[in-house]
Amino acid sequence: MFTVFNAAPEGHWQVTLVKPYRGETLPAVGSIAIAQSAVLPSGNDWHLTGVASHVRYVERAEKIALTSVQAGLGRNEATQAALIPIRKSQAWWDLTQEERRQIFEDKSRHIADSMKYLPAIARQLYHCRDLGQPFDFLTWFEYAPENAAAFEDLVGHLRGTEEWRYVEHEVDIRLCRN
Amino acid sequence: MFTVFNAAPEGHWQVTLVKPYRGETLPAVGSIAIAQSAVLPSGNDWHLTGVASHVRYVERAEKIALTSVQAGLGRNEATQAALIPIRKSQAWWDLTQEERRQIFEDKSRHIADSMKYLPAIARQLYHCRDLGQPFDFLTWFEYAPENAAAFEDLVGHLRGTEEWRYVEHEVDIRLCRN
Repeated sequence: MFTVFNAAPEGHWQVTLVKPYRGETLPAVGSIAIAQSAVLPSGNDWHLTGVASHVRYVERAEKIALTSVQAGLGRNEATQAALIPIRKSQAWWDLTQEERRQIFEDKSRHIADSMKYLPAIARQLYHCRDLGQPFDFLTWFEYAPENAAAFEDLVGHLRGTEEWRYVEHEVDIRLCRN
Repeated sequence: MFTVFNAAPEGHWQVTLVKPYRGETLPAVGSIAIAQSAVLPSGNDWHLTGVASHVRYVERAEKIALTSVQAGLGRNEATQAALIPIRKSQAWWDLTQEERRQIFEDKSRHIADSMKYLPAIARQLYHCRDLGQPFDFLTWFEYAPENAAAFEDLVGHLRGTEEWRYVEHEVDIRLCRN
């Protein structure tokens, strides 16, 4: 099942910002509606598609810790969101799994350092590298307004890690619930 | 870019066998043509689609060893082929990466024990779990007729491993070049 972020005049989420962090921006869009689709969407209308797949880097102890603390999507109070599509470089994908894990966690502490933002920031990762899309991942976050600063802190922290040296395209999309 | 195995009356590869190993079979098909496609095919005609993606389990030393010994597809003498679509169970995908690797290599020696069949058997793995397909992988092998017995030996060996306890759907398709 594909998750599709569609431009929609009456979308559930109003877009407040579209700004490139690295590489080209995306076309401006007013609102976004999130849909589940059994087929991979085509066509030229604004949409981003990904798949909520199995975990790639977390180890068992981390998975247990994350599961015990993380919040699900759709909380009433989480009226702000961020959609950050990311593409990593060919150099990243030429690494082996254990080399990627080493950079991801041993050097960049992606999981450990993100843990303190849970459950305030709810997260969902969608994979799209194998879907022939322009990005490798769509990262989606939901949080209450009082946690907006914490969210920006998390994003800023990740962007300073060694892992982020492999990010070659990234766009910030911020949203609030209509 | 998607790799599509299409039923085709004039396909490059003539199908000599379609036989389920575990689970349901696939409809009989006369010939198969292999195509590259920028879009994910839809429609009800016989086709299987996958993506030649980055490696998931091999470590650096294994990658170097494999690269030094493996053969590419399309060798003149490799007139026989096998297309074996495989789906693993939810229990497999609920494992973490390091647990899957442990079963895949530490217990099942998937890489190490397959190495002796190289370069006689050329292989390519296509991923399709995240494409909404009925299989997780399409495995493709090409070999000369004199290596057909070695190939069946390899397949039989893998099916005896602990890794294969997680395979819940698998179909044997054997082909020869037209």
